[in-house]
Amino acid sequence: MLDPAFTSALAAIVPGEALLTSAEDTRPYECDGLTLYRELPAAVVLPDDEAQVVRILELCHAARVPVVARGAGTSLSGGALPIADGVVLSLAKFRRIVSIDPLSRTAVVEPGVRNLAVSEAAAACGLFYAPDPSSQIACSIGGNVAENAGGVHCLKYGLTVHNVRKVRGVLVTGEIVEFGSDALDAPGYDLLALVTGSEGLLAVITQVTVKLLPKPREARVVLAAFDDLEKAGAAVGAVIGAGIIPGGLEMMDQPATRAVEPFVHAGYPLDAAAVLLVEADGTPEEVESEIAEIRQVLTAGGATSLRVSADEAERLLLWSGRKAAFPAVGRISPDYYCIDGTIPRAALPRVLAQIEAWSRDYGLPCANVFHAGDGNLHPLILFDAEKPGDKERTIEFGDRILELCIEVGGTITGEHGVGIEKIRGMCAQFPPGALERFHGVKRAFDERALLNPGKGVPTLARCAEFGRMHVHAGALPHPDLPRF
Amino acid sequence: MLDPAFTSALAAIVPGEALLTSAEDTRPYECDGLTLYRELPAAVVLPDDEAQVVRILELCHAARVPVVARGAGTSLSGGALPIADGVVLSLAKFRRIVSIDPLSRTAVVEPGVRNLAVSEAAAACGLFYAPDPSSQIACSIGGNVAENAGGVHCLKYGLTVHNVRKVRGVLVTGEIVEFGSDALDAPGYDLLALVTGSEGLLAVITQVTVKLLPKPREARVVLAAFDDLEKAGAAVGAVIGAGIIPGGLEMMDQPATRAVEPFVHAGYPLDAAAVLLVEADGTPEEVESEIAEIRQVLTAGGATSLRVSADEAERLLLWSGRKAAFPAVGRISPDYYCIDGTIPRAALPRVLAQIEAWSRDYGLPCANVFHAGDGNLHPLILFDAEKPGDKERTIEFGDRILELCIEVGGTITGEHGVGIEKIRGMCAQFPPGALERFHGVKRAFDERALLNPGKGVPTLARCAEFGRMHVHAGALPHPDLPRF
Repeated sequence: MLDPAFTSALAAIVPGEALLTSAEDTRPYECDGLTLYRELPAAVVLPDDEAQVVRILELCHAARVPVVARGAGTSLSGGALPIADGVVLSLAKFRRIVSIDPLSRTAVVEPGVRNLAVSEAAAACGLFYAPDPSSQIACSIGGNVAENAGGVHCLKYGLTVHNVRKVRGVLVTGEIVEFGSDALDAPGYDLLALVTGSEGLLAVITQVTVKLLPKPREARVVLAAFDDLEKAGAAVGAVIGAGIIPGGLEMMDQPATRAVEPFVHAGYPLDAAAVLLVEADGTPEEVESEIAEIRQVLTAGGATSLRVSADEAERLLLWSGRKAAFPAVGRISPDYYCIDGTIPRAALPRVLAQIEAWSRDYGLPCANVFHAGDGNLHPLILFDAEKPGDKERTIEFGDRILELCIEVGGTITGEHGVGIEKIRGMCAQFPPGALERFHGVKRAFDERALLNPGKGVPTLARCAEFGRMHVHAGALPHPDLPRF
Repeated sequence: MLDPAFTSALAAIVPGEALLTSAEDTRPYECDGLTLYRELPAAVVLPDDEAQVVRILELCHAARVPVVARGAGTSLSGGALPIADGVVLSLAKFRRIVSIDPLSRTAVVEPGVRNLAVSEAAAACGLFYAPDPSSQIACSIGGNVAENAGGVHCLKYGLTVHNVRKVRGVLVTGEIVEFGSDALDAPGYDLLALVTGSEGLLAVITQVTVKLLPKPREARVVLAAFDDLEKAGAAVGAVIGAGIIPGGLEMMDQPATRAVEPFVHAGYPLDAAAVLLVEADGTPEEVESEIAEIRQVLTAGGATSLRVSADEAERLLLWSGRKAAFPAVGRISPDYYCIDGTIPRAALPRVLAQIEAWSRDYGLPCANVFHAGDGNLHPLILFDAEKPGDKERTIEFGDRILELCIEVGGTITGEHGVGIEKIRGMCAQFPPGALERFHGVKRAFDERALLNPGKGVPTLARCAEFGRMHVHAGALPHPDLPRF
């Protein structure tokens, strides 16, 4: 419960309907895309502009009320989960595309603008915004920056952090700040990268300048089938090792293709143990020569069949299964849990084989759909929350996958962020010294720890409480060293 | 002077010849590429391995002795300038290329490895390391990371920060740390980007994992002449605006071409007010179509002549003038001062015209040689240090250029870093709040401020002492906001 004087002060900042306090009104904000965790906030506030954001934060800072910023609420790690005694600050009204500049190849947008809307607006100039998370129809740029979102195109064009030029925001003290510059480089420490992926812990974003890229003139995709999961994993490495940088390099295993095919009718070979989707983009000449190379490498890698999209319609059809994989799995299983971890590409065959073995051990089907080129895994564990023990075994299975990711030199998240979901995993990923350094950085921005508390970086006390500290990464030369 | 007990303790860590304390021995370390500033350090220490680095830093931390890490000493901003009562920690013996992995497309190298040596070692796998500062024959990777070095190829392939995957180093406390991961993304704040460009203020780098890229199969360059400087500047924007991402886009004005031509005989048109060098790289088909487009855009932009390299020998010849510009200017002027600033591309014509006008006002010739595509200026001011007043007017001229960079929305450095040279400029670039945040970050790594003190980020007291605070950037919507 908030102090009534505080609530009145909030109401004085924003117009009446922009402050929600009844459970009925705040219910839609009780969770984000990770529905496993729910919490009703004391208040939700929807400011119209940056000046209101400043005043809201100044007020919360003075009253020491925690604040959780929220974009479209599509986070899969609970990054926008409310705090019971806190305020949710929604950027839903920040929907303006301020400018598209083909000369500097940038777009200036407000944080509530949907990811796809940026590319749609830039299309008139022959440009696009490269990072394309699966949720790109719905997710917003502010959240993309907060979580350093990825996507199919990130293998070739980089993560969000590589495609952002400037971030404007408000510190919890109400101070307006800008990170980055209109120029390519900026002096001082790189706080632009620091704020990107900081999960709402350092500042509330009010404006983002993103890089735009020339739209490739053509794109074609190769669908390759493999009779063995490890062979498919090895083929991913072979494509990269051959010096090809595909526009996208995705993998789906048999449980995934079998879930998807009846839904989208993309023509996936259902007898294959796994399929790869490998895209080439660029000029027509470039695409042609790259497709030829890709075919050669995949054939040498043991592909049992190859299909190349003949036109744009076929390309979109072949991708449709990958894009619809999550809802397709939702059709065949009462519940599923999407894991997000990253591993070095070389470890793909080993990790895939282990996941398959655990799937049998736990008796839980697991569909693998992921950004193979980036080594970013998305095992979808299928379970039934109504079935006693299923949920617990699912979480244990997921934890083991993430521990394996750390063990092979990878990380506990690829693109979904830590949020609340992986706060325990952070204790396993990092030793106390590294976590302390994260807290030191946090203090430079938010000394009272009011922005999104409890997310992203666990306190040392919390790690001790979990009883699980730093898992030594056996593959590293010095297993005790802090890894950031 | 160091305490004799401290010196003995240092001597106990490294072999005899690896500790230098006499003025005769430390003289070669008194400055880096910025020879304007010189200082003899109390001691220079050249450790053999990381274990020695740890012990040296532990010792200095305990004794509160400042430490300046040094790579090849090619910094142009005095980043490696010694502290009179401090220790220079040279990484000269860290020259091992640990591994080149074509599968993950990475190289693991020690910080003393020369930039060019990485590409040479990777060539066998058909790969290269993209960032290529002009000093790439001599400069080392550790320094490249510390300064976030740029180069001709950075327009297409990004700065050092975009090409580094992992940095291993030692904190001033002796703690070994790793930033980044073997996977594409890492949880927690992005400390890898933070340490890149941190100018030796956060950690001493002991190992770097860099990204390698497939070597383009072909590259050709267009040399375009313009009879007007502003037209050449506008043509740079036109190339980018046309959706082309050249492998390099460099500009030289007439004073530069006239200095260079008698030295390299590249065949530059000496009657042109400026020339552009625009490179296309990729597959032969891609290069051909891109060159055709570039020709078209440059012709429409008013180029008076165009020359396209017919073969690799001609391509290297056309670039040779650009690469040799600094030594060439050194031949015709007793002294020169290389300015480094970055501006949004759209401001190029205005800034170039202003530099030309100031050059006349000050009576100081100025040759412009720079990464035009990035908006990274390198005006070379020619002067004679023996001539009374020349040095002072040169510094004033340089300061005005940097102030203009800030005014048009740019920054006081493109790739040379702040070091000691631009410490005053930081007071003009950033308001006190932003500088305070930088110090907050620094405290999280080096609470006693022993690593490279006095460089990179000025104290607020120092800014007040300079009597020059934040220059308002007129072009920004909110001139008072802190910019990072």
